Amino acid sequence: MSLLEPDEALAQVLAAVSPPTVARLPPERCRGLVLAEDALAPADLPPFDRAMMDGYAVRLADAGRSVAILDEIAAGDGAARPALQPGQAHPIMTGAPVPAGAEAVVPVEQTTRADGRVSLPERIRARANIVSRGAECAAGRPWARAGAIVTPMTLAAALGVGTRELAVFPRPQVVVVTTGSELAEDPTRPGQIRDSNGPMLVALLEEAGIAATRRTVADDAGALLACLQSLEGVDAVVLTGGVSAGTHDEVPGVLTRLGAVALFHKVAQRPGKPLLLARRGRQLLFGLPGNPLAAHLCACRYVIPSLRRLAGLDHVPHGGHGTLAAALPGNSERTWFLPARVQGGAVMPLPPVSSADLVQPHQANAYLRLEPGAASLPAGTEVAYTRIGADAWPS
Amino acid sequence: MSLLEPDEALAQVLAAVSPPTVARLPPERCRGLVLAEDALAPADLPPFDRAMMDGYAVRLADAGRSVAILDEIAAGDGAARPALQPGQAHPIMTGAPVPAGAEAVVPVEQTTRADGRVSLPERIRARANIVSRGAECAAGRPWARAGAIVTPMTLAAALGVGTRELAVFPRPQVVVVTTGSELAEDPTRPGQIRDSNGPMLVALLEEAGIAATRRTVADDAGALLACLQSLEGVDAVVLTGGVSAGTHDEVPGVLTRLGAVALFHKVAQRPGKPLLLARRGRQLLFGLPGNPLAAHLCACRYVIPSLRRLAGLDHVPHGGHGTLAAALPGNSERTWFLPARVQGGAVMPLPPVSSADLVQPHQANAYLRLEPGAASLPAGTEVAYTRIGADAWPS
Repeated sequence: MSLLEPDEALAQVLAAVSPPTVARLPPERCRGLVLAEDALAPADLPPFDRAMMDGYAVRLADAGRSVAILDEIAAGDGAARPALQPGQAHPIMTGAPVPAGAEAVVPVEQTTRADGRVSLPERIRARANIVSRGAECAAGRPWARAGAIVTPMTLAAALGVGTRELAVFPRPQVVVVTTGSELAEDPTRPGQIRDSNGPMLVALLEEAGIAATRRTVADDAGALLACLQSLEGVDAVVLTGGVSAGTHDEVPGVLTRLGAVALFHKVAQRPGKPLLLARRGRQLLFGLPGNPLAAHLCACRYVIPSLRRLAGLDHVPHGGHGTLAAALPGNSERTWFLPARVQGGAVMPLPPVSSADLVQPHQANAYLRLEPGAASLPAGTEVAYTRIGADAWPS
Repeated sequence: MSLLEPDEALAQVLAAVSPPTVARLPPERCRGLVLAEDALAPADLPPFDRAMMDGYAVRLADAGRSVAILDEIAAGDGAARPALQPGQAHPIMTGAPVPAGAEAVVPVEQTTRADGRVSLPERIRARANIVSRGAECAAGRPWARAGAIVTPMTLAAALGVGTRELAVFPRPQVVVVTTGSELAEDPTRPGQIRDSNGPMLVALLEEAGIAATRRTVADDAGALLACLQSLEGVDAVVLTGGVSAGTHDEVPGVLTRLGAVALFHKVAQRPGKPLLLARRGRQLLFGLPGNPLAAHLCACRYVIPSLRRLAGLDHVPHGGHGTLAAALPGNSERTWFLPARVQGGAVMPLPPVSSADLVQPHQANAYLRLEPGAASLPAGTEVAYTRIGADAWPS
């Protein structure tokens, strides 16, 4: 297959995403997910006429009078009471149920208390400081619409309204599989290194609201095949390493043996040229290069957008424009995605000293994009950037 | 105490934050935290001369010749080998250690293999496709600076360089305490409601990179005092409910009995007027109103910035300007923070139907700020907003 242009590769990745499934989950497990259906209120919200202030529940006809003080109604008070009669007032707390017969709640600051009685102001507005039962949402009506994101406030509203389950596009199940015989948890022999791509990719996905687990597999076709076979139910598998043309690069062959359909292999970009995409049923399989910068770019640019789309979330990262704080070299024949740090309006390019270097670029919070054959740019040029990290993703 | 202006309240909150402590943690536990000290490389990075391509490790004098093929060197290969001699080449994989005597790695595409020998190109650049040992960072040198955020790439670099522990400003320990006798996990009696503020605040903090746990306590001074006494070692306690002037509002009195120093109580804002701040040693105690919108605003505006400052993180949320998609009413005497949804350049105000309503505003991703006495604004007016959610916080 010839090299795909990066935009065509992204389009193919997004097109390969299956329509999201729908799950019914308790609200507590839905934060950050998108509602698949309208959420209907199982009961009125509020469930009773609710006092909005600390004060007295009163009748309108008692405005300007001194009335008898009955027992206090606290928030959470469930006692049955006779209807409030003329000449009476219940002390009432914010959030408490307004008793039958009461027509307003008068704030405590507008009253004076003496000799076991309370004097009410001259003017009392009907329903003042009372939220009527069902005013926020009536039972059976939608209180949240399909397509809404479950924000912390949505979560609180769901708990407040008594919703047991929300119909959402569930969080994708993702497994990051790092391949490489050189990987060791505790390197002792020369040539061995710790797996750093796995933790990096899991952390990157987490910042984008996607939980992932990880595995490590040797450069061994049999072990890799067995690993992938055990992951059949997972929405996406993100492999790193083993996708180049080397004799130990087992990924393409194993994917064929697995019965996965290769969608593309190799993209006209640096880093990340060997990127591979395959599909097995609903499952997406990404083959990311083992080079950590390449794996990082491919995760930001291809993996995360596809997984966010699978969850029904916005998949276009935030970006902006800023002023180069240092010159950029010209570019050769492939689109170049270059890590940079954006601070205020300044954009500092953070080129790695080698293709596997994370030390220079590790404070990057954005990527710059240099088109093939782009001329060098002096400091002070305005450039566009795309954000990395939690603040890349719309809320 | 008289009402504080919101900006003065924020200044007092930030001033009340103690200098951050320093902890030494494994890199895996440091994501999103700020380095308190330079991180020094315990060994050279890379730890050996590393091949950057799949190809042949060769001597420069063999350019243009056909040479004998020795055994292959894979990534992770730790075998001891004699130095490469003239007329020889080792097949070598990306990431593998370059053997002694080799002066360059020639990419496999630039060679032809026949009869057990390999023909090398006419021109071979010295050190081509070799990253020298220590080129990214030499042993003992700082590979990351104090003040850096531990990004996913920083995490990978730390694991790659073999760092066992990073000196960071640790994640604040925060407990959200919801007070209210009306709260029940499974409401059955009239007047009871589920705790929704606790889960909302924990979720809000989580979106800002701060992990919190939660407790529920009845409106009972003894129980609340015991709860707060048990939380002595915690960096911050976020109480909701019980901060107004009602007879059941136990928080101010309990804080006094606890020995906490009240810093302020009541801010000239809506919602959230009863906001209270106290300190006990290093511990910050926030008294948030029980009204969920007020608790939300106070968490976004005061609690999260202070906790981010405690962790050494940037505490100014992202904001921007957009065009009102609907008219805004004029404001009365207190600064009004109004939930809104920003989408593209459009800003849709989401006013609640009552002060406790979450249904109308639950899709808010920003707050608008209306100054005291501000005139009404027609649709189409440009307004400033401050972001809510994960994308509010700089990476």
